[in-house]
Amino acid sequence: MDDWQCQITIQVRSTEIDVNGHVNNAKYLEYLEWGREEWFEQNRLDYDVLKREGIVTVVVHISANYHREAVQNDRLTIKSRLVSVGNTSLTMEQLIVNQRGDKVLDASLVIVTTNPDTHRKTRVPDVIRKCIHGAG
Amino acid sequence: MDDWQCQITIQVRSTEIDVNGHVNNAKYLEYLEWGREEWFEQNRLDYDVLKREGIVTVVVHISANYHREAVQNDRLTIKSRLVSVGNTSLTMEQLIVNQRGDKVLDASLVIVTTNPDTHRKTRVPDVIRKCIHGAG
Amino acid sequence: MDDWQCQITIQVRSTEIDVNGHVNNAKYLEYLEWGREEWFEQNRLDYDVLKREGIVTVVVHISANYHREAVQNDRLTIKSRLVSVGNTSLTMEQLIVNQRGDKVLDASLVIVTTNPDTHRKTRVPDVIRKCIHGAG
Amino acid sequence: MDDWQCQITIQVRSTEIDVNGHVNNAKYLEYLEWGREEWFEQNRLDYDVLKREGIVTVVVHISANYHREAVQNDRLTIKSRLVSVGNTSLTMEQLIVNQRGDKVLDASLVIVTTNPDTHRKTRVPDVIRKCIHGAG
Repeated sequence: MDDWQCQITIQVRSTEIDVNGHVNNAKYLEYLEWGREEWFEQNRLDYDVLKREGIVTVVVHISANYHREAVQNDRLTIKSRLVSVGNTSLTMEQLIVNQRGDKVLDASLVIVTTNPDTHRKTRVPDVIRKCIHGAG
Repeated sequence: MDDWQCQITIQVRSTEIDVNGHVNNAKYLEYLEWGREEWFEQNRLDYDVLKREGIVTVVVHISANYHREAVQNDRLTIKSRLVSVGNTSLTMEQLIVNQRGDKVLDASLVIVTTNPDTHRKTRVPDVIRKCIHGAG
Repeated sequence: MDDWQCQITIQVRSTEIDVNGHVNNAKYLEYLEWGREEWFEQNRLDYDVLKREGIVTVVVHISANYHREAVQNDRLTIKSRLVSVGNTSLTMEQLIVNQRGDKVLDASLVIVTTNPDTHRKTRVPDVIRKCIHGAG
Repeated sequence: MDDWQCQITIQVRSTEIDVNGHVNNAKYLEYLEWGREEWFEQNRLDYDVLKREGIVTVVVHISANYHREAVQNDRLTIKSRLVSVGNTSLTMEQLIVNQRGDKVLDASLVIVTTNPDTHRKTRVPDVIRKCIHGAG
């Protein structure tokens, strides 16, 4: 796990390959979401828990660097960590590596916490704050 | 068209909506690709032309800001322009607005031109250089 | 419109093409759903109306014949009609043709009406029954 | 494996869930394709082998029955078998069950073998014929 908090491994499937024979740039953002879902679940922060806390998380910024292509049957590991928490936003970093350890993609995301009724930004709850990388 | 070089309008379809009732963050990257495809075609730079020039284009960086959610039946306009060309890379900007004129997403992409056989970076051909925004 | 009740036309986009250079067999089922959504909306049977009638529609059977491949930029017309209504189910037929009038796919679907709370089958409401092809 | 020739198990991911909170009917056809890819690979019939045999396989008919919904994190097992071979076509059956053993979907597909250059139907090669269920 090195310096990451959470990881999942997935296999690239035939329908995830585009006409160029590799994973399309948009598909990686789905892989990243799968990795974040696991991070939230491992930290017992699934959708219902957050709703009880009065928040919904919304991605407001993604920055991604594509290093190497992925092809059918590749086994990709998606790694995630929470690196900082502001008043109403969090920053997560994610990395995708293939079965040979090559870096495929790295990304940084800004996520805001909003009130599900008013859709307004709301303070990041402590249940998330305590999950920051290196905390505790 | 204001200050953009190319635009397409699409309708958000039912299967493009996720469990939260809006377009998922990954789907927008597909919309952006649809917009860039149109840009390349309008500039007579489709896949076969580029191949004759000895290049394939590869996205190496995407930075996107999500401003507002989109829901089923929204009509989204995807606008594209080429803003700069380096030795072996180009930078494009894209904007998605909805039918009310609200900004939904803005993005900046870096695309490199590579040799399809060696996969090595190669100089951006003049057929692309002349398409830069404000040129001519 | 010939003998169909509703139709939409869509353009095949780059990310809807698979490694074989054509629309993947699964993607057509999304196109069919887009066509049915339009049929329901045209008949003022959208999700909220059905919910007030106390039902949710669920697809329980699809049979599809693939006649011809579709490629990027093809303009596909998806046609839909309701052909029969049973006690708790409806049968719809759909057809996809391309911009040259070639038949691309035809399909037949069985949809049941269920109670959203109990998930049990419930009688097809009259608001749907009156929409049957050739009625009125 | 009971009476099936091949199976894979996948986990339902967040972006595979639609606005109704379950796997959309089109997505299952992708799962089926993933299962067939594995069947072809296990039988050493991958794309390159078939190409050397002078054929490409094309799905011409799918019939699917949806028995039960699947939701995020469900673990679905996709089972596949070749049940009959005609002159230029094969019939495969597939079944999807969830982690509780519930039947989620069953399907029957007709696949034709075509010449990749002429796109005309061609005789099913013996390398496929010998893989029929119960053979040998």
